[in-house]
Amino acid sequence: MALYVHKYGGSSVADAGKIVNVARRIADVYDAGSQVVTVVSAMGDTTDELIDLARTVSDEPDPRELDLLLSTGELVSITLLSMALRNLGYDAISLSGPQAGIRTDNAYGRARISQVDPERLRHELANGRLVIVAGFQGLTPDEDITTLGRGGSDTTAVALAAVLNADRCDIYTDVEGIYTADPRVVPQAAKLSEVGYGEMLELAAAGAKMHPRSIELGAVYNVPIYVASSFSDAAGTLIHQSPDDEQMEDRIKVTGIAYQTNVAKVTVCGVADKPGVAAALFEPLASSGVSVDTIVQNTSADRTTTDISFTVTTDDLPRALREMSSLQDAVGAQQVINDPTLASVSIVGSGMQNTPGYASRMFRILADGGINIDMITTSEIRISCIISQEQAQEAVRLLHRGFELDDDG
Amino acid sequence: MALYVHKYGGSSVADAGKIVNVARRIADVYDAGSQVVTVVSAMGDTTDELIDLARTVSDEPDPRELDLLLSTGELVSITLLSMALRNLGYDAISLSGPQAGIRTDNAYGRARISQVDPERLRHELANGRLVIVAGFQGLTPDEDITTLGRGGSDTTAVALAAVLNADRCDIYTDVEGIYTADPRVVPQAAKLSEVGYGEMLELAAAGAKMHPRSIELGAVYNVPIYVASSFSDAAGTLIHQSPDDEQMEDRIKVTGIAYQTNVAKVTVCGVADKPGVAAALFEPLASSGVSVDTIVQNTSADRTTTDISFTVTTDDLPRALREMSSLQDAVGAQQVINDPTLASVSIVGSGMQNTPGYASRMFRILADGGINIDMITTSEIRISCIISQEQAQEAVRLLHRGFELDDDG
Repeated sequence: MALYVHKYGGSSVADAGKIVNVARRIADVYDAGSQVVTVVSAMGDTTDELIDLARTVSDEPDPRELDLLLSTGELVSITLLSMALRNLGYDAISLSGPQAGIRTDNAYGRARISQVDPERLRHELANGRLVIVAGFQGLTPDEDITTLGRGGSDTTAVALAAVLNADRCDIYTDVEGIYTADPRVVPQAAKLSEVGYGEMLELAAAGAKMHPRSIELGAVYNVPIYVASSFSDAAGTLIHQSPDDEQMEDRIKVTGIAYQTNVAKVTVCGVADKPGVAAALFEPLASSGVSVDTIVQNTSADRTTTDISFTVTTDDLPRALREMSSLQDAVGAQQVINDPTLASVSIVGSGMQNTPGYASRMFRILADGGINIDMITTSEIRISCIISQEQAQEAVRLLHRGFELDDDG
Repeated sequence: MALYVHKYGGSSVADAGKIVNVARRIADVYDAGSQVVTVVSAMGDTTDELIDLARTVSDEPDPRELDLLLSTGELVSITLLSMALRNLGYDAISLSGPQAGIRTDNAYGRARISQVDPERLRHELANGRLVIVAGFQGLTPDEDITTLGRGGSDTTAVALAAVLNADRCDIYTDVEGIYTADPRVVPQAAKLSEVGYGEMLELAAAGAKMHPRSIELGAVYNVPIYVASSFSDAAGTLIHQSPDDEQMEDRIKVTGIAYQTNVAKVTVCGVADKPGVAAALFEPLASSGVSVDTIVQNTSADRTTTDISFTVTTDDLPRALREMSSLQDAVGAQQVINDPTLASVSIVGSGMQNTPGYASRMFRILADGGINIDMITTSEIRISCIISQEQAQEAVRLLHRGFELDDDG
């Protein structure tokens, strides 16, 4: 019997009517003879509302307490979905993250799944039940509740699909699939029918709407992930081990354009140019949970001091600045400056780095559009430029047209 | 160091301002040098709102799913209270029922605490923390979430006080203590400064605002329980092992008048008057979780058949009637009739049953007030009459005056 893991996001379960609609979709798959495990997010804007509620009693809510509070959002949606299925005559059971065996580290607010114990899930499936699992949450070794960060329900779904050896993980959302660029920015963007994990990872990390860790997990465990709309039956995008992933050299093209607007740059000026300085700066950042994206180091003219710049999300900027100011004396920095008004735009495709023509073409397109490039980074399948936030959407449109992705059909 | 368990009900934590107020009260006790474990209910009407939400997707929500849904109410209030304490500079931690070691049977919606594992609680207290525990909820041996039924947070608090060997369990609520009758019905009702467990048990079971199982637990483990207002500093009522409990014979008096309005009577007519009939009726009721209160059996004139009547709460009436109609043929009953418009009124005091004068005086007071008595039951310390619902409050007032409880001071 086929086994599918479905994931429905908050907008798909935003009210009772939508929950009943999701219940019917699950029932249809069950009636067609498949086992289904469904992962759901909190209803609509519940998570944001709970964060607002926390702020009514505390300026800076304790991360452990906040995670326990936020975990209630998914408990509400899973129990309602299970009740709706039972009301339609199906035997359903809801499981919290801990009940579903999701174990995590204790990085509150951004926990990583360390292990999934599938015993209870297998037991319920063996009893012929439709299993509904709370996304976004897990349990630490000390039995405290954690959340996995924004979009964490995607990761929950792929992790369950991996451990249950599911035939496919379907991510149902409010868009119809993965596009060559954000359709709200580029009306000519085309829907991809399939995409490799690697390219999707870059598209997701650089702004497309999927949790990057879910794609990483999918790639590692080779879980086919299908992204489609929960409101229509239009064909979506299959993320899988595509031939491209293995034959990069043979087929080089730009798959899509990604962007991210909440980028901040921190520059630590005039630090001694000697071994250990970068470690002294970035180790404390890592242990305080700040994700650093691009890092650029410029040696000064006299070659005794250097400026180190890096980018973080604007959310992480206050923490990054706190860490830097407490380190400033230790590394002998002259000053720490920052710019929170940046964005990144990326071209994503197979074998980018080995084809220098793509980078220069990207820089030319941006230059012709009057867009200044602040920093550049490249990976095997991505070239990203840090530019000003207000020019981000224009840059995406120019690159989408310049790399001949516009769907003129 | 003294250790207190405090319990705050839903009206005491109904909004952010009230939660901060409760945080200040707890902080004061901590500053005075005591350890405090605080049990809280869901904010305001949250539990009712969650039940309404469940009804939007299911006419008859599954009890297991409903309990998991309802358990979120207390998770919200404990995390907010813990955040509020941390915001005031105190080291607080919130624990869900399962995290606090509360283990129950699997009677969803009315689970009973089977065990409390205090390891985590003791660990957090030893770290000097203020511990906030979710009332009303626990974990089954299969790791499913249960709720303890209306008022279950009182039971959570007394169970924690018992297992931690606390100096006292304080129940803070929206009234100032226990009265000789409901002050909303009898303006002359007087506040009791102390009351024995046994009398309180009868007052609670027959309508006063405390969870009866919390009093039972308090009596068994000899936990002094102090009931007072969360909104004022007025002296409350201490429920404890009073001298009265041990010297019943010496001191007989009516302590108070209790009443309960949601009483329904079921009569199974014309069943064979032979051994085993009562068991055949009441065993299935017990296993379906219906609590039966008063039972009366009348033998018919010809002595071959009998009518059996019993009372249940109006909430349990539909389930009781379902059970009875499926049993009707098996016990050879002619018909099953019911009356959902009843109430009980009780006089409560030490040594009632051994003093016949009290019963006759009660019946005379009701008769003089034109109130018809439908059924009568007595216990060691209580005499209860089942009467019509619409006469209940009048009966309470007449009995309060008749037994000279009116506070004319």
